[in-house]
Amino acid sequence: MLSKAQNKYIRSLSLQKYRKEHNVFIAEGDKISREWLSSDAPIQHIAATYEWAEANRALIDRHEEATLHIVDDIQLKSISTLQTPNHVLVVAHMPKHDDAMPANEWCIALDEIQDPGNMGTIIRIADWFGVKHIICSPGCVDVYNPKVVQSAMGGHLRVNIRTAPLNEFLSQANMPVYAAALNGQNIYEISKPAYGVLIIGNESKGISDAILDKAQHKVTIPRLGGAESLNAAVSAGIICALLMGR
Amino acid sequence: MLSKAQNKYIRSLSLQKYRKEHNVFIAEGDKISREWLSSDAPIQHIAATYEWAEANRALIDRHEEATLHIVDDIQLKSISTLQTPNHVLVVAHMPKHDDAMPANEWCIALDEIQDPGNMGTIIRIADWFGVKHIICSPGCVDVYNPKVVQSAMGGHLRVNIRTAPLNEFLSQANMPVYAAALNGQNIYEISKPAYGVLIIGNESKGISDAILDKAQHKVTIPRLGGAESLNAAVSAGIICALLMGR
Repeated sequence: MLSKAQNKYIRSLSLQKYRKEHNVFIAEGDKISREWLSSDAPIQHIAATYEWAEANRALIDRHEEATLHIVDDIQLKSISTLQTPNHVLVVAHMPKHDDAMPANEWCIALDEIQDPGNMGTIIRIADWFGVKHIICSPGCVDVYNPKVVQSAMGGHLRVNIRTAPLNEFLSQANMPVYAAALNGQNIYEISKPAYGVLIIGNESKGISDAILDKAQHKVTIPRLGGAESLNAAVSAGIICALLMGR
Repeated sequence: MLSKAQNKYIRSLSLQKYRKEHNVFIAEGDKISREWLSSDAPIQHIAATYEWAEANRALIDRHEEATLHIVDDIQLKSISTLQTPNHVLVVAHMPKHDDAMPANEWCIALDEIQDPGNMGTIIRIADWFGVKHIICSPGCVDVYNPKVVQSAMGGHLRVNIRTAPLNEFLSQANMPVYAAALNGQNIYEISKPAYGVLIIGNESKGISDAILDKAQHKVTIPRLGGAESLNAAVSAGIICALLMGR
């Protein structure tokens, strides 16, 4: 059961303001909830249908700190951010991030990524290629937006994500900087570096000039057909595959 | 102005049943509408705000076959499939597709791609890498779903998209077949073929066994981090970049 106040509290977390105030966020659905409950991230609430809770008893028991609410479909729908709620919703504390400057490892810097699906997909790509750090410019979409959490598929648990002014970060990072640009060097002609910072820009404006100036290498995926551009997350995936994959 | 009947007709096109019946579909927003109006695809209706129509007079004049409706924001919202309508909506006839068997060129075969965003993004990727043919299994999401049209960014104009049973297509295609699989050969160790068919599978189930059996090459993007999988469209982008890019 959920009290009226708990229902109101969980619903409020669809807004960044309240997520920030309480330092928590929402993860929803069977797959992502199981990912978060399998981790050591502290959980505040678990709202699940009776059947889901029975089937996932061991995962729930790992989290004595959490309050479990057995809910029916109507109650779940009232707190869900999904069009079709999916058995379970978890309110989790935001993982602490590490502000130390990364050295000799890959980082991805995001300049004003606006679309939550792109942000989540880029976190998932970083997680796949073993990129440990994502630095978001202050103008990026909130990385705890429910749609970002949904499409990152648990990536927040393994990728250290912080928000910082990119020019400051890039000035301090003592690593080669690669920028995804339109008129850069053919990425197939670049020798694979061991580490560095990869900058991905805004969906329509690309990387701002002040940030682009900090990049030693502007790289481009050559176009072979008629499309005007590639989606930002797909570009990020391709560049990661070409620079880091093996 | 839009008559009541025209309004109802355009609204009905958010459903596949009516798109199929009338052989038309909806393209929305400034960028995508301009892309369709710049092409020779026949247009049935253009519903635009006065400002947009004034600014794009030359594009509208290319289409004598189309009926132009000057609408206000409220009328546009009443026919739009977007949460935030964007100046213009176009009803266009579906381009004719070519059913001839491709030879010595790249094709992408999609086995039950369900998510409209993924479908549109894969069409955009094909368009970027110059892939001329996409073959969709009958279980795929409709490629004229408004969200597919939105994320394909005009790719339908340059990529020949058809629906066909994949096992039949693959049996007839006299080309090497590559399948994106979980336990395949490391894609970095494959020599770049000049052409072939690339199969991408369903978002959660992957490629069905009967289809996978038809592939001579099962290829995998090696995982370097902790993510369980990559998004289907991102995988498609990476594999295209590694097999076709240069």
